[in-house]
Amino acid sequence: MTDWTHHYATRASRMQASEIRELLKLLDQPDIISFAGGIPDPELFPTAEIAEACRKILSDPASAAVALQYATSEGYLPLRQWIAAYMGRLGVVCTEDNILITNGSQQGLDFIGKLFLSPNDTVLVAWPTYLGALQAFNAYEAQYARLPDADHPYVVKTGNPAPKFGYVMPEFQNPTGTSMSEAERVALLDAAEALDLPLVEDTAYEHLRYDGERAPTLLALASERAGGIDNAKVMYLGTFSKSVVPSLRIGWVVAPQEVIRKLVLIKQGSDLNASPFAQMVMREVAATIFDTHTAKIRKAYKERRDAMLKALADYMPATATWTKPEGGMFVWLTLPAHIDGAELLQRAIKDIRVAFVPGTAFFADRSGRNTVRLNFSLNSPQTINEGIKRLAGLIEPAI
Amino acid sequence: MTDWTHHYATRASRMQASEIRELLKLLDQPDIISFAGGIPDPELFPTAEIAEACRKILSDPASAAVALQYATSEGYLPLRQWIAAYMGRLGVVCTEDNILITNGSQQGLDFIGKLFLSPNDTVLVAWPTYLGALQAFNAYEAQYARLPDADHPYVVKTGNPAPKFGYVMPEFQNPTGTSMSEAERVALLDAAEALDLPLVEDTAYEHLRYDGERAPTLLALASERAGGIDNAKVMYLGTFSKSVVPSLRIGWVVAPQEVIRKLVLIKQGSDLNASPFAQMVMREVAATIFDTHTAKIRKAYKERRDAMLKALADYMPATATWTKPEGGMFVWLTLPAHIDGAELLQRAIKDIRVAFVPGTAFFADRSGRNTVRLNFSLNSPQTINEGIKRLAGLIEPAI
Repeated sequence: MTDWTHHYATRASRMQASEIRELLKLLDQPDIISFAGGIPDPELFPTAEIAEACRKILSDPASAAVALQYATSEGYLPLRQWIAAYMGRLGVVCTEDNILITNGSQQGLDFIGKLFLSPNDTVLVAWPTYLGALQAFNAYEAQYARLPDADHPYVVKTGNPAPKFGYVMPEFQNPTGTSMSEAERVALLDAAEALDLPLVEDTAYEHLRYDGERAPTLLALASERAGGIDNAKVMYLGTFSKSVVPSLRIGWVVAPQEVIRKLVLIKQGSDLNASPFAQMVMREVAATIFDTHTAKIRKAYKERRDAMLKALADYMPATATWTKPEGGMFVWLTLPAHIDGAELLQRAIKDIRVAFVPGTAFFADRSGRNTVRLNFSLNSPQTINEGIKRLAGLIEPAI
Repeated sequence: MTDWTHHYATRASRMQASEIRELLKLLDQPDIISFAGGIPDPELFPTAEIAEACRKILSDPASAAVALQYATSEGYLPLRQWIAAYMGRLGVVCTEDNILITNGSQQGLDFIGKLFLSPNDTVLVAWPTYLGALQAFNAYEAQYARLPDADHPYVVKTGNPAPKFGYVMPEFQNPTGTSMSEAERVALLDAAEALDLPLVEDTAYEHLRYDGERAPTLLALASERAGGIDNAKVMYLGTFSKSVVPSLRIGWVVAPQEVIRKLVLIKQGSDLNASPFAQMVMREVAATIFDTHTAKIRKAYKERRDAMLKALADYMPATATWTKPEGGMFVWLTLPAHIDGAELLQRAIKDIRVAFVPGTAFFADRSGRNTVRLNFSLNSPQTINEGIKRLAGLIEPAI
């Protein structure tokens, strides 16, 4: 086979297939209990409503002609208007001109990387953080440092260039499931302001709260401080992938207009526009059932979270600790220091037919080898109980 | 408003809104005859077939669950298999492992830029070339030089790094509408081989041939030379945007497996996966009506091309020349040297309510100021005749 390496850009060396992902690809076998994914349960999809929206849009020749043609890069206006109103309910005052439609929030991460990152620029991320964000920013040859919190202030080193932005999931973080309190959010905004650091607020699981109280979004807090969204230095990423369906690939960025205008040019050069058909279907479905549907999936996922927390309490040895998330899709398990998550996965698949994601994948420095991400959104409470029981049995003997 | 400039990557300075695009955005008024777009006629969309495919896929719970979920980054297997068979009909021997599904071929251009281009790398392009390719590569801070042809050999300068790839539309080029003969393709492959230069073959209009004979694709010729696609240095971009509908955003890259594996990682980091629903709909529609539907749109567009060539011959002054395309969507008009296409557009919109795209946008060096791109796919033969008549009247007096 021809060698292509010398033709590639320098960034290509940062694009390696993950061994874990390759391993997890093989897990379609029905006898495996998988806590590995981060995907919604297809049993809960609003299929009938989506089918009806497709039928309605395509049965009218005028709307069909719009739905099937090219479209503007910023996105379908009625959908952006729906999102602007939704953002208002979250305390963010914005208009459709503050919104770009993206292919899921993953594309928002890619575009923000493209707009902000030159090679060797630094991004501040949590330790651990969302794996897909690291993948998106790696393509722009980013370096990483730790996002400041109470225990880890960011120390400016003389001669080092300023970090380009901080990336954070304040609600039900992937992978830990934990949320930031309002005081922590305010402290982060203070630190960012002192560093002149824009923040990227990723809220993929925002609507999946099962108990506790929501703290204001970073964008709402920053807009209030700055006297309006266009002076705030926060970019908010939202998505319908977890609240409605992933497959229509509809996410959004809410940001100051100046940033949105640049991101629209990036959208144009990257893939021209999001599917107007998909956007029209999503607008129709969201306008009809967003609240009732998200209430329904919250009810289902809450039972599964409860089942996972109960099973962990029932079966795990005292040397293991885990997060108690108020929402989202994940519990983060910290094992005794001598256990390697990747090795445990190999054994778990072979011996007990249970899968999960080892934690190192979520650390920019590949630390956290004794941590594990467990997803609870895809299995029934009974299956969750059985899987955690088996997993605990595999950990116990090593202690 | 806050100034963001110092936060941006160096590439952001290459992302400027085009004045022409902004002007053309305003052209939705019904009294304008627009030759500006490059879009298919929505009257010809296979709406009923798409609606039926949506209904079929979503009415079966098993296929609906796949259609609405996340999916693999490489794309929906039955669609890749359909495309592999289609490529076989074009003389390209490949398997589904040589194929990545992208959001239209624009995303293929973006991904190839991402994989190959570091800042200041050189891309060889035609003079003129597709504007969207320049936009895609600009984001990776490319430089441009002229793709070699019989009149313009590429001169290697000592000390200059080798160009990273050549970008070419051998069939019905956007913007000129012209195609390369087999001899020209062979000569380009010879030149590329001598330079160790990968080629990107963009075939967005490939199926829109109205007369004349198709020459073999560069990928077919290169595969034959190299003893198989995996040793060929050509990446082929295809799309359903012009043959079926743009809005499902389904394009594809056909390339050696090593390149596809890298592009799959890029897809994963950029937006995870193309919509499985859109891919399943497209597979269903393509498998059912691709040949009959493309025959139907060829018939309609041929009449429009004929009408445009006749009107140009009937009305244009002897000092103007134009291409006679055997297919595609465009005619390229070269005006007397003293006429500026951008100025002509301003006057044409104001005085005669006719729009088109000035040619400079398609030149990497912004030359070609007396050229103009005319689209014929969107208007009826009568409207085309009227628009060209008006345009010729605007040119005549200046001579």
